[in-house]
Amino acid sequence: MNTVELIKKKRDGKTFTNDEISFLINHYTKGKIPDYQFSALLMAILLKGMNPTETAALTNSMLNSGKIIDLSSLKGYKVDKHSTGGVGDKTSLIIAPIAAAAGVYVPMISGRGLGHTGGTLDKLESIPGFRTDLSLAESIRVLKKCGAVLIGQTKEIAPADKLIYSLRDVTATVESIPLITASIMSKKLAEGIDGLVIDVKTGNGAFMKSYSDSINLTNSLIKTAKSFDKEVIAFITDMNQPLGNYIGNWLEVYESIMVLQGKIKNDLYSLSIKLAGAMIYLGKKAKSIKEGELIAKQKIKNGDAFNKLLEIVKLQGGNLNYINNPDRYPKPKSLRKVKAIQYGFVKEMDTYKIGMTSLELGAGRRTKEDKIDPKAGIVLFKKIGDFINKGEIICELHSDSKAKIRLAEEMINDSIGFSKTKPAVPKLIKKIIQ
Amino acid sequence: MNTVELIKKKRDGKTFTNDEISFLINHYTKGKIPDYQFSALLMAILLKGMNPTETAALTNSMLNSGKIIDLSSLKGYKVDKHSTGGVGDKTSLIIAPIAAAAGVYVPMISGRGLGHTGGTLDKLESIPGFRTDLSLAESIRVLKKCGAVLIGQTKEIAPADKLIYSLRDVTATVESIPLITASIMSKKLAEGIDGLVIDVKTGNGAFMKSYSDSINLTNSLIKTAKSFDKEVIAFITDMNQPLGNYIGNWLEVYESIMVLQGKIKNDLYSLSIKLAGAMIYLGKKAKSIKEGELIAKQKIKNGDAFNKLLEIVKLQGGNLNYINNPDRYPKPKSLRKVKAIQYGFVKEMDTYKIGMTSLELGAGRRTKEDKIDPKAGIVLFKKIGDFINKGEIICELHSDSKAKIRLAEEMINDSIGFSKTKPAVPKLIKKIIQ
Repeated sequence: MNTVELIKKKRDGKTFTNDEISFLINHYTKGKIPDYQFSALLMAILLKGMNPTETAALTNSMLNSGKIIDLSSLKGYKVDKHSTGGVGDKTSLIIAPIAAAAGVYVPMISGRGLGHTGGTLDKLESIPGFRTDLSLAESIRVLKKCGAVLIGQTKEIAPADKLIYSLRDVTATVESIPLITASIMSKKLAEGIDGLVIDVKTGNGAFMKSYSDSINLTNSLIKTAKSFDKEVIAFITDMNQPLGNYIGNWLEVYESIMVLQGKIKNDLYSLSIKLAGAMIYLGKKAKSIKEGELIAKQKIKNGDAFNKLLEIVKLQGGNLNYINNPDRYPKPKSLRKVKAIQYGFVKEMDTYKIGMTSLELGAGRRTKEDKIDPKAGIVLFKKIGDFINKGEIICELHSDSKAKIRLAEEMINDSIGFSKTKPAVPKLIKKIIQ
Repeated sequence: MNTVELIKKKRDGKTFTNDEISFLINHYTKGKIPDYQFSALLMAILLKGMNPTETAALTNSMLNSGKIIDLSSLKGYKVDKHSTGGVGDKTSLIIAPIAAAAGVYVPMISGRGLGHTGGTLDKLESIPGFRTDLSLAESIRVLKKCGAVLIGQTKEIAPADKLIYSLRDVTATVESIPLITASIMSKKLAEGIDGLVIDVKTGNGAFMKSYSDSINLTNSLIKTAKSFDKEVIAFITDMNQPLGNYIGNWLEVYESIMVLQGKIKNDLYSLSIKLAGAMIYLGKKAKSIKEGELIAKQKIKNGDAFNKLLEIVKLQGGNLNYINNPDRYPKPKSLRKVKAIQYGFVKEMDTYKIGMTSLELGAGRRTKEDKIDPKAGIVLFKKIGDFINKGEIICELHSDSKAKIRLAEEMINDSIGFSKTKPAVPKLIKKIIQ
């Protein structure tokens, strides 16, 4: 096979055979196709698309570029959740303990934050000592012991995805549904799961801003998962405002602890119950998602879920002191309470900008090399539909740098719109597709 | 400016500003944009297009990546011709001497053959001693002295084009009208010309196989030339059979000599007169193309054109012995006369395949590194519409290798279709656009 001819084929809108896709992925992963050819191919794929059969073949080639974790020694169902990411989206930290407490195995491989979105790994690593870089053997040991493990993508898992993703990132070829699908699914399938809950975010803080793109991505993910005989439930959920009230790495761990302890019952709690309920159902520990949700609520109420978090943190080397006493966590040098300069209802939030504000405070990364301050971030006291009086506190900004806080205050004021009349609150769960 | 954002812009079908194009070309030429980003951009340009303003800006940036030859010291008009290339297309070797003999300056920069098409430089270099690698100063001296010079692209001329073309070649991004336009025009404008005759080939041996693509390319070339205030005449001409009767490097020099000596008056002669006529008209040595054609014919008849060829060859270091006595040229070790196995009219020719047959015999290159045998090639005795008796000779195959000749004979037999009734002969000149 000839690489230039294959690029030409996709450029002209034709369909690849499985063998052609496998040739391209194998040769690229082995360094036999140079980056400059592969990036032209990626652009052709982005602009000309791939059908479901091609997408499944691409997923398969990327999956088989590395190891597939063998979890057959664990009796029971293995279920994971994937979210396309947003601002304040920390459900992984909540639902992994809940589902594990309900008897479902959760082998979870997560990513880092980039741009306006946070990453589960960064959040976990804000817990002193917490290791996300366990080896495969260590991960399986943790999973066996406590029913959940939260790690990063290892070298063995879908190396093709790692290579391709770095290239997409610098060639404006990220936003392609088949490429996104194969990237997500190759990693998730490598986890050795039986079922997958998918949370596709939609709205101004999501990767997929338009609802129709979200639907397309969801359908592509479902089709691909099913072609690998995996059970799957997908949720399309709102990202027109941050999820929950805390944004920033430790701040999100903090909020997760509060939810797991039953102390916070906000939108984050509701969505976590839904997603955990679906995981419990896919893990055959409930006869319906609804029953799964009841079990999830019960696991919070009776303390099992929080105890499971403690167990996971302990097994992965994290300092339990901060989980048991989150108020002892180091405080940022500066803290600014932002007050409303007018009264009214919170009408809209520029969620992307709020994510960028958190990044500005030190919680995020502009490039992969940037360092993160685990303490930095935002606590939102008001969300869409809430009434606020003049002088009342909208949010708190946390950072070690006063200059950053000054800039962030301007940004946050620009990010929130008010109205005198009560606005419609965006529906949290827009669609469930099974 | 951010390269990824610019790639995204074109990917999303938006229009570049002049500054953005200039940023991209300058930074790529200086090595500040890596190949893998530029190739993704090229694919986006190929699939999303560029409008005439963008194409002109691209041409301008590529032109200004190098030197523009200053020919202001030469009194008189400088006119060149560009052909998009085909099989047996050797008009440059004929019309440069004719136009120069008529008093027009012809500063001609040509390319090498690749794939099924030949290149003017390879043809010229089949003349022992002929140098196509003159420096700019030497070229201007030759041009001043005899009115024409035929050289290759020097390092100083449009270096951006050289870089971009190599990348396009290996990333399936050659077939883009704005990219082709900028590549051609940046080199031609660097020659310091006042006017340009364009010969866009169309048909099964051409780069542009469909007539509508040929029209689009022609219009793009004309618009761009005019935006640089250059006078331009474009011809769309037939490439559904080889031009003339000789294919191969020395064989094409031979046929050019025969045309310039008035000994051959075939389709090659007719087209050469047309193109030379247009050059003479653009060079203000005739009041119309028609009058230019009469002058061109006269220059062949009175020997001036052939004498001009001798002058050019001499000034560029070529051995005049072979021009004056072409029959003394070294003969190939093998020569095969291919005979018709049936009687009938030649109905159609797979011109691409005939070009590839010539390559197979040793006259062409599969990759840029391949060596060429100047003696190798094909002499066609019959063309479309000609009647042939069973056993009559269709063509002669020239090569040093008997094995290659055997393969070539199979290929040539596959390339020619016959019919019992007289077929329509493709019109040589399909359209003239001014």
